[in-house]
Amino acid sequence: MSKLLALEDVTAPVCCAPLSGPALSEAEAAELAKVFKALSDPVRLRLLNLIASAEGGEACVCDLTGPFDLTAPTISHHLKVLRQAGLIESERRGTWVYYRVVPDRLTRLSGLFALPALAPA
Amino acid sequence: MSKLLALEDVTAPVCCAPLSGPALSEAEAAELAKVFKALSDPVRLRLLNLIASAEGGEACVCDLTGPFDLTAPTISHHLKVLRQAGLIESERRGTWVYYRVVPDRLTRLSGLFALPALAPA
Repeated sequence: MSKLLALEDVTAPVCCAPLSGPALSEAEAAELAKVFKALSDPVRLRLLNLIASAEGGEACVCDLTGPFDLTAPTISHHLKVLRQAGLIESERRGTWVYYRVVPDRLTRLSGLFALPALAPA
Repeated sequence: MSKLLALEDVTAPVCCAPLSGPALSEAEAAELAKVFKALSDPVRLRLLNLIASAEGGEACVCDLTGPFDLTAPTISHHLKVLRQAGLIESERRGTWVYYRVVPDRLTRLSGLFALPALAPA
């Protein structure tokens, strides 16, 4: 949890600034690079897609292993990487763990690639 | 160049669909993962930031080495990775090579993280 909080803290300053905006500091770039490293795996992208598109905004871990030809521990590892990058959060209710995206984090990434300041040359 | 075109072709179908939308195919996820791998390096993120925020929308390679404590060949390598991921394009004019972002690619990534379909649970 402290890892997640540390990541949140450091990336907070880059919040909604697009890449076409102010200069990224070395520290901001290093933290953002970690988030993109979490996204640089096809299974993790498909898991994030399944969670983001799940009905009611959350997905039971019991529904996240079926689509993959992978063991439950491997899926759990990928979910942990996404969670540590602050992209998803989890909650245990009874037997199962439920995952949902962290909208704030996804909105920040969306804003990063927005190009409001780019005018035709 | 063929590598760049191949990447464009494969990612085209995921165009503007957000992660909260239709299911990503394995092929789409694999191609997207490559783009995020290109972004998972702090130097490349800062280069992309410098290029995206450059006056007139383009940056001379001669202005891209100064901010880093790295050799010109290392910077060239990082620029090549960004170019192969379809994030920037380059043009030689006289002595120097000039880089600009590919707005369409950045807009696609922005759309990927948009959350239009997410309603509060």
